Amino acid sequence: MPKNNFDQLGYQSSITARLWRFLVGKPLPVSRAAHEQITAPEGLAAMSLDAITSVAYGPQAIVYELAIAGTAALVYLRDITFAIVILLVLLVTSYIQVIAAYPQGGGAYAVAKENLPWYLSWLAGASLIVDYVLTVSVSIAAGIAAISSAFPQLQPYTLYLCLAMLGMITLLNLRGVGESARAFLLPTMIFIGSVLLVIALGFVHPTYPHSLGLRPSFTGSIKMVSPLLLLKAFSAGCSALTGVEAIANGVPLFKEPRQSRARNTEIALGAILGVMLLGLAQLGTNFHVVPSNNQTILSQIMQASVGRSWLYYLASLSTTIVLGLAANTSFGGLPVLLSLLARDNLVPHIFSVRGDRLVFSYGVVVVAILSAALLIGANGNTNALIPLFAIGVFIGFTLCQTGLVIHWLKTKKGSWWLVRAFLNAAGAFATGVATLIFLFTKFTSGAWLVAVAIPTLIAMFMYINRYYRRVADALGLGKLPPLPHKSKVLVVVAATDISLLTVNALSYAFSLGSQVYAVTVRFNDEDASRIERLWEQWSPGVQLTVLRSQYHSLVRPIVHYIKTLESTHSPDTKILLLIPEISPKHIWQKLLHNHMGLIIASQVQKNTNALVARLPMPV
Amino acid sequence: MPKNNFDQLGYQSSITARLWRFLVGKPLPVSRAAHEQITAPEGLAAMSLDAITSVAYGPQAIVYELAIAGTAALVYLRDITFAIVILLVLLVTSYIQVIAAYPQGGGAYAVAKENLPWYLSWLAGASLIVDYVLTVSVSIAAGIAAISSAFPQLQPYTLYLCLAMLGMITLLNLRGVGESARAFLLPTMIFIGSVLLVIALGFVHPTYPHSLGLRPSFTGSIKMVSPLLLLKAFSAGCSALTGVEAIANGVPLFKEPRQSRARNTEIALGAILGVMLLGLAQLGTNFHVVPSNNQTILSQIMQASVGRSWLYYLASLSTTIVLGLAANTSFGGLPVLLSLLARDNLVPHIFSVRGDRLVFSYGVVVVAILSAALLIGANGNTNALIPLFAIGVFIGFTLCQTGLVIHWLKTKKGSWWLVRAFLNAAGAFATGVATLIFLFTKFTSGAWLVAVAIPTLIAMFMYINRYYRRVADALGLGKLPPLPHKSKVLVVVAATDISLLTVNALSYAFSLGSQVYAVTVRFNDEDASRIERLWEQWSPGVQLTVLRSQYHSLVRPIVHYIKTLESTHSPDTKILLLIPEISPKHIWQKLLHNHMGLIIASQVQKNTNALVARLPMPV
Repeated sequence: MPKNNFDQLGYQSSITARLWRFLVGKPLPVSRAAHEQITAPEGLAAMSLDAITSVAYGPQAIVYELAIAGTAALVYLRDITFAIVILLVLLVTSYIQVIAAYPQGGGAYAVAKENLPWYLSWLAGASLIVDYVLTVSVSIAAGIAAISSAFPQLQPYTLYLCLAMLGMITLLNLRGVGESARAFLLPTMIFIGSVLLVIALGFVHPTYPHSLGLRPSFTGSIKMVSPLLLLKAFSAGCSALTGVEAIANGVPLFKEPRQSRARNTEIALGAILGVMLLGLAQLGTNFHVVPSNNQTILSQIMQASVGRSWLYYLASLSTTIVLGLAANTSFGGLPVLLSLLARDNLVPHIFSVRGDRLVFSYGVVVVAILSAALLIGANGNTNALIPLFAIGVFIGFTLCQTGLVIHWLKTKKGSWWLVRAFLNAAGAFATGVATLIFLFTKFTSGAWLVAVAIPTLIAMFMYINRYYRRVADALGLGKLPPLPHKSKVLVVVAATDISLLTVNALSYAFSLGSQVYAVTVRFNDEDASRIERLWEQWSPGVQLTVLRSQYHSLVRPIVHYIKTLESTHSPDTKILLLIPEISPKHIWQKLLHNHMGLIIASQVQKNTNALVARLPMPV
Repeated sequence: MPKNNFDQLGYQSSITARLWRFLVGKPLPVSRAAHEQITAPEGLAAMSLDAITSVAYGPQAIVYELAIAGTAALVYLRDITFAIVILLVLLVTSYIQVIAAYPQGGGAYAVAKENLPWYLSWLAGASLIVDYVLTVSVSIAAGIAAISSAFPQLQPYTLYLCLAMLGMITLLNLRGVGESARAFLLPTMIFIGSVLLVIALGFVHPTYPHSLGLRPSFTGSIKMVSPLLLLKAFSAGCSALTGVEAIANGVPLFKEPRQSRARNTEIALGAILGVMLLGLAQLGTNFHVVPSNNQTILSQIMQASVGRSWLYYLASLSTTIVLGLAANTSFGGLPVLLSLLARDNLVPHIFSVRGDRLVFSYGVVVVAILSAALLIGANGNTNALIPLFAIGVFIGFTLCQTGLVIHWLKTKKGSWWLVRAFLNAAGAFATGVATLIFLFTKFTSGAWLVAVAIPTLIAMFMYINRYYRRVADALGLGKLPPLPHKSKVLVVVAATDISLLTVNALSYAFSLGSQVYAVTVRFNDEDASRIERLWEQWSPGVQLTVLRSQYHSLVRPIVHYIKTLESTHSPDTKILLLIPEISPKHIWQKLLHNHMGLIIASQVQKNTNALVARLPMPV
């Protein structure tokens, strides 16, 4: 048996196929699907990257929003960051409750499905899809922004670099290496360490403390800063909180004792993210950062803190790498979510089919296409994607917390259940309000797209679910069906000429059924009588029916013939149409045959109840 | 029965399909294929357009070639035209012999096939293909040049106009109105009449006799005109002779007495073309025409003769129309040639399949694509196409005449056979020499493309012919095959679950064969024992074999299972694999099902000898 000969998609035969195998690797046996068991630091690397790396775009989003009212408005950077950190604390506390309640891993969809009405779980599912795709796009865009702040000569190629990074991550995910937490540990620690070190040095001994601001200090009129602008800046900054939920989703991945390890990881995440956000906000204010087309806010702060030193480059490079890893993590998350939704009959079942590298390949391809579309639409610019971001996440936050409140009220589990319910209710309220703020303040600058996408997805869920329910009814799934029964079979052979092809088909027909019919189509009398004469001479044991075609079509007379057979026999009689065909060795030799067999087969199946088998004969 | 329901390609279901039907029309019954019977003037319109309209580019080709050596060289225009007209007389005489010898219509391919070795008939076939495509391209380019000489504001859009004209002609040919000679009569007569009138007025009473030349007369050194240049000009001008053979190909289309009508038409064609060519050459010399980017030579001569009068516009417009009709005629010719070649197993058989408008649709599409490629390559410029032109035609002339010589020598038919043989030999010699002149003088300016295309086509013929011969051997075509025989059939049902789908497939299996097997593939033990338990409970009368998949593939285990069945039974045993499938009503609902049935079917057919039938169940 040749190696790979039975490959699912017949890859082995072409150069493209071999290139594909080289890129994604050989099929893996099912037994390899077992999960790794990880520690708390590894958990930080595997599941918190999305949250921690959001320091690369969260503070920037606030600065850009405030700067619309003039640089004087940037004085609010600290206050807004402070509000966001309070929300962060609330969220971390809430998610510690989720870890306690759902040690089997409670994503927003799972929690909502268990505790909330179906339409809210569908809303959670739709929001998460949007969220995953946006996380991938924003992380990649921010990663490329980090590296091209350090190396400005890369800036003209932003979009291409984004797409190249996306392509690389897609391939990695098709290979299925997305979950190796250990490999993520070192870059994550370098990133956290170097950014924290840069922040510390920025406070203690900044290199260029006054190099950045266009104005020496934030003076001037700040009366122009409306409450609306502050809300907008707040909602933009909330993009820094995305990803806080990931650890609660992944509790089963931790080593025992799972729940305490997961809780510790969640707390560590909250602490690191909070410190970074507050530190960066204070340094940004100290150094008078302003929006710039050439440099991200994080890069500006780092440059002012330590100059263009090795530490600056280390931090920048690790930012890019870790943002790439963050994108990779979300990339792995959506296919898993889609497979869950497929099992609940909300998306096409094909998303629950694992490819031969044991990954949900179709889901991976869908994320890649959607993310590429977003990156192209935003021209690789992080700031253009921010208004779309966070809405999906915060809908998920809200639904998850709400579900938890119901959970505590229902189960009354543990002595602190009322406190826990209260904490989750507070979280749900805060994130719910935040969601509404996003939606209203960002509607015209992009949030409308999300406001359209989520209902569209829900409508799609509804349609697909109804279709699958109808199919399940038609198949009688869930109950034992009646027993099969034998009935009469008429076997019809569609002959084109008298040849070994016809012999082969007739042999099959005689073997399969007691009643055999042979038909052929002819366009003129001469041809018709020629084959009738030859057939009589041959006399293979069955009469040949010559069908005359009024139009130049082989299909109509055959379909008509079978319909006639159907109408002249009892409805229980089965008809099998055998279409003998030449099956050439090479695919390009197929060009030398007409494909009437295929056309006849599809039209007969469409228009009659007959079973069709195309009988290939190799030449 | 809904109208059009059994349409060959299932057009009726989509908007594209309806648009297509609107453009090409409804299917026609076979009985409509009867030919029209035409008179001599109608024959001129239907079959001589290519030849007569070549006055629009032939003289121009000479002028452009001579002008390379300076305008003084244009003094040779008359002499070269005279030589060409002598060749014309020789050709017309030769083709009158063809009409006498092949009243059933003797194209170069038919004549060569009957009288010459196979490789020469293949050469004739290949040359004709090239010839037809070039005639279409040159006629369209010249037609657009004629109209944009009259309306210079059209010049920037030359290529687009060419492609639009090509598109229109393609559609007309897909509708199959290519042969309505009567419709062509009026424009052809207007064209001939108006051009002859313009020429006559040009001699008698020219409007602007001195308006054109850059120099008042052809003075200056003409020593620079080498014999090579004269040969080049001659070969360029021979493009005016293309199409002379068409009448001989179409003898069966004439009313009785066919041969004399065809002969009269051929003589009329020779006379009209000869007079036009000589007249235009003399007027061109009188008016001192020179190459121009804005105006064709024909347009210059007409303008000098009658000014921008209504007669000028009538002649220009009819030139464009008649060139379009000429392109249309050649367009109809290639598909017919391809269908002949397909019957001789030299090109894919699909070219001999008539579409439901009774035209050889595949051939029409091939001409359209090749002509479009040439027009785009030449940017819609007639002069760029001329060097490629005429080679194919003259190879055809030479082979046809040579075949005729053999024909006369073999048959010795009629009292004049020796004279006829001599005339054809003279024609063969002259056109053979002309072919060599073209090839050598035009090689670098484009003829190399033809010199590559023709051998490539012949190599293709050879490959295809060998393949079809092998297939015919494999099928035992041409002799009565052995009688079919009955043998044992094992029916295997590939079940995915226990459902009505499975019941349906098992019912078929029990009806078709005495030995029925049911198999299913499972990826884990839990799932495997669940279905085993259920199956036992159901006990439909057949054991279920649960195949465990080590890789995440349904295909490998099934292929392996069938191979095992094959190896444990006698080679005469037939195996039928039934794959039950859900068949949704709408095509987009197919997205909601995985297509494992299709993949399993194709892999089982590729790797085993089993017959596969996919059993659709509508939901």
